[in-house]
Amino acid sequence: MRDYVVDNIETRTREELFINMHPIQAAGRLTPEAMKALIAYGDGYSTCDWCRKPFRLDKIPRPPIDEFHAELAKFLGMDQARVVPGARRGFQAVASSIIEKGDSVVLSSLAHYTEFLAVEDANGVVKEIPLNEKNVITADATAQKIEDVKKESGKLPKLIMMDHIDYSFGNEHDVYGIAKIAKEYDIPFLYNGAYTIGVMPVDGRKIGADFLVGSGHKSFASPAPSGIVATKDEWAGKIFRTTQMVGDLTKRRFGIKEVEMLGCTLMGSNLIGMMASFPRIKERIKNWDEEVKKSNYFLGGFLKIEGNKVLSELPRKHTLTKVDTRGSFDKIARTHKRRGFFFSDELKDRGIVGEFPGATRIWKLNTYGLIWDQIRYLVNAFKEIAEKYGLDVSD
Amino acid sequence: MRDYVVDNIETRTREELFINMHPIQAAGRLTPEAMKALIAYGDGYSTCDWCRKPFRLDKIPRPPIDEFHAELAKFLGMDQARVVPGARRGFQAVASSIIEKGDSVVLSSLAHYTEFLAVEDANGVVKEIPLNEKNVITADATAQKIEDVKKESGKLPKLIMMDHIDYSFGNEHDVYGIAKIAKEYDIPFLYNGAYTIGVMPVDGRKIGADFLVGSGHKSFASPAPSGIVATKDEWAGKIFRTTQMVGDLTKRRFGIKEVEMLGCTLMGSNLIGMMASFPRIKERIKNWDEEVKKSNYFLGGFLKIEGNKVLSELPRKHTLTKVDTRGSFDKIARTHKRRGFFFSDELKDRGIVGEFPGATRIWKLNTYGLIWDQIRYLVNAFKEIAEKYGLDVSD
Repeated sequence: MRDYVVDNIETRTREELFINMHPIQAAGRLTPEAMKALIAYGDGYSTCDWCRKPFRLDKIPRPPIDEFHAELAKFLGMDQARVVPGARRGFQAVASSIIEKGDSVVLSSLAHYTEFLAVEDANGVVKEIPLNEKNVITADATAQKIEDVKKESGKLPKLIMMDHIDYSFGNEHDVYGIAKIAKEYDIPFLYNGAYTIGVMPVDGRKIGADFLVGSGHKSFASPAPSGIVATKDEWAGKIFRTTQMVGDLTKRRFGIKEVEMLGCTLMGSNLIGMMASFPRIKERIKNWDEEVKKSNYFLGGFLKIEGNKVLSELPRKHTLTKVDTRGSFDKIARTHKRRGFFFSDELKDRGIVGEFPGATRIWKLNTYGLIWDQIRYLVNAFKEIAEKYGLDVSD
Repeated sequence: MRDYVVDNIETRTREELFINMHPIQAAGRLTPEAMKALIAYGDGYSTCDWCRKPFRLDKIPRPPIDEFHAELAKFLGMDQARVVPGARRGFQAVASSIIEKGDSVVLSSLAHYTEFLAVEDANGVVKEIPLNEKNVITADATAQKIEDVKKESGKLPKLIMMDHIDYSFGNEHDVYGIAKIAKEYDIPFLYNGAYTIGVMPVDGRKIGADFLVGSGHKSFASPAPSGIVATKDEWAGKIFRTTQMVGDLTKRRFGIKEVEMLGCTLMGSNLIGMMASFPRIKERIKNWDEEVKKSNYFLGGFLKIEGNKVLSELPRKHTLTKVDTRGSFDKIARTHKRRGFFFSDELKDRGIVGEFPGATRIWKLNTYGLIWDQIRYLVNAFKEIAEKYGLDVSD
């Protein structure tokens, strides 16, 4: 029997009843404080109770939205920060401000699709940097791509975007080296921290980034859609430029409103949820090494199962990992009457969800936020399933 | 003593402890069902549990997000609908798809600032239609403005945007007549329903609109940011065009993702909140006449106070109203030691909030969703305050 919120919307109990290893849900899971904020500030315009002149979200003092913006910028080693409805809106704001028709944007061969869309919406063209044999983007490869673009189009790219940790393998790419190359060529550099900001320490100044973009619902324990775009003062005037439009008849101006932000950005509990999670975020990034250790521990156990492979770089530097079970669980699936779903069934019977249901070939998982007991339980569950179906498990 | 969610974020109790007549908060207040949805689906990627091929938010069957999209389009008398993070993102999607550099967009002298920003972001130019003596935009004035733009620039405007009910006076503008004019000139027409969709019946086909834009947190009892953009099949290919970008190296394509939507738009409880409120929305729009009646009843009482004026059109056709108390409460404020805040204090003592604190000159209020007992209480409270300070109150 299922319970329903209303009509045909069932109650969601995945986080209450299961260990969830879903690749993108792990670090976005709300903190208890964000959940409380959701209840208290659920009404959309709840943040507007104390909105006064100059009437812009990031200037509201109560709750202290203004302070949060200042602290957020500082936390990221940048001068200014804004909240936006998702990292994608951050990419869009930067691309829309910098890219003109036909301009090239150099990005990763593992760039997230939302970077493609942001460039396309700005009428730019994406140019992908090749991966090395370890599926990593290097500074050298970036420099080479810049040269290729220059040779081919006669112009330097207008922007470099780089995912510090990519969405596919969860590999770490050389953002420090790439930022240096960007500086050498005098090309602005956007750091995509969708998988880093909120889970590990990120210092934009140290990296040498011109723009940082983060995701609230991916890595900042915040409701969706939510995200962050931060920049240095020298770019703020461009990315956060205020409206210059004047009504031809009324002569109206809305001077303080920022064009790319479309005025106020993230009202209600999405923002207050980010603020409520922030103190815990500041703490949890200090435990990143421990999270990575758990990730590696789990995969160590996972690799004891005959035929299992890890496609991401090893040792892991992140908790998101791409695995290959074609040589193990997929062999079982080929003759099982439930096909790949046998594996989902077995996991679910053990209180585990988050794998892609039915997938036993190449898939992704994320151990972020699981406690050691859950990690060990997960390892045992995988081994148990393997043994049940006659796969060898080494000690 | 205040309670806190965490740190310096105080618990919000405005809707629990007060009658709230805030101009923009009234119709966005969550339904009990949306509140439950918030609790169940608070995690940002909660909507992604059952995301399968082709991997786009509006195609997800469980909870039935796909059905909701289809029903929403039907509900609005349009062919296709998408949810977006706020009405402003709807304006942006349409403007960005249609407007090229220097193109003119004809809009209301009472157009919301987010329409200005959307046009500015698309490098267009706004051209305002004058108001008549009743602060209303007519079809004739629209036709005249189109002619003026044509004469002046040699080209027809590329888009007409019109707020059915404006944010300032809450007046009703002749969207039916304006849509006809738009059709005559063959200019696409965007209907801004931020103050109508979700509170009164809106039928895009009947109106003759090419695009409808609505706000979830303003009029659809939904969390922020949330909004709706809907269109007819003939425009869907343009506004909801899918990405054509191809990775130069990897040849990656993300064919189903829509450029203006930036892929998936409104995950988590913002969307599920809209869905949860939808059954009640469908009911409540049938009671719109009663809501307007309450608005007029309240203002009838309000006008019994000597010096009070209503600046919006009368009788009211909406629950949002601009009032002028310069001849009444402001006279008191001028010599009161708390200045305009005396009025806020008096209201608050009577359990009423939502006026602009300290404002006793020209301000706005909204009676939407208050029950008759609260409306009568509100009238009595205003009269009581007036009498306390020696203002004449007629029978």
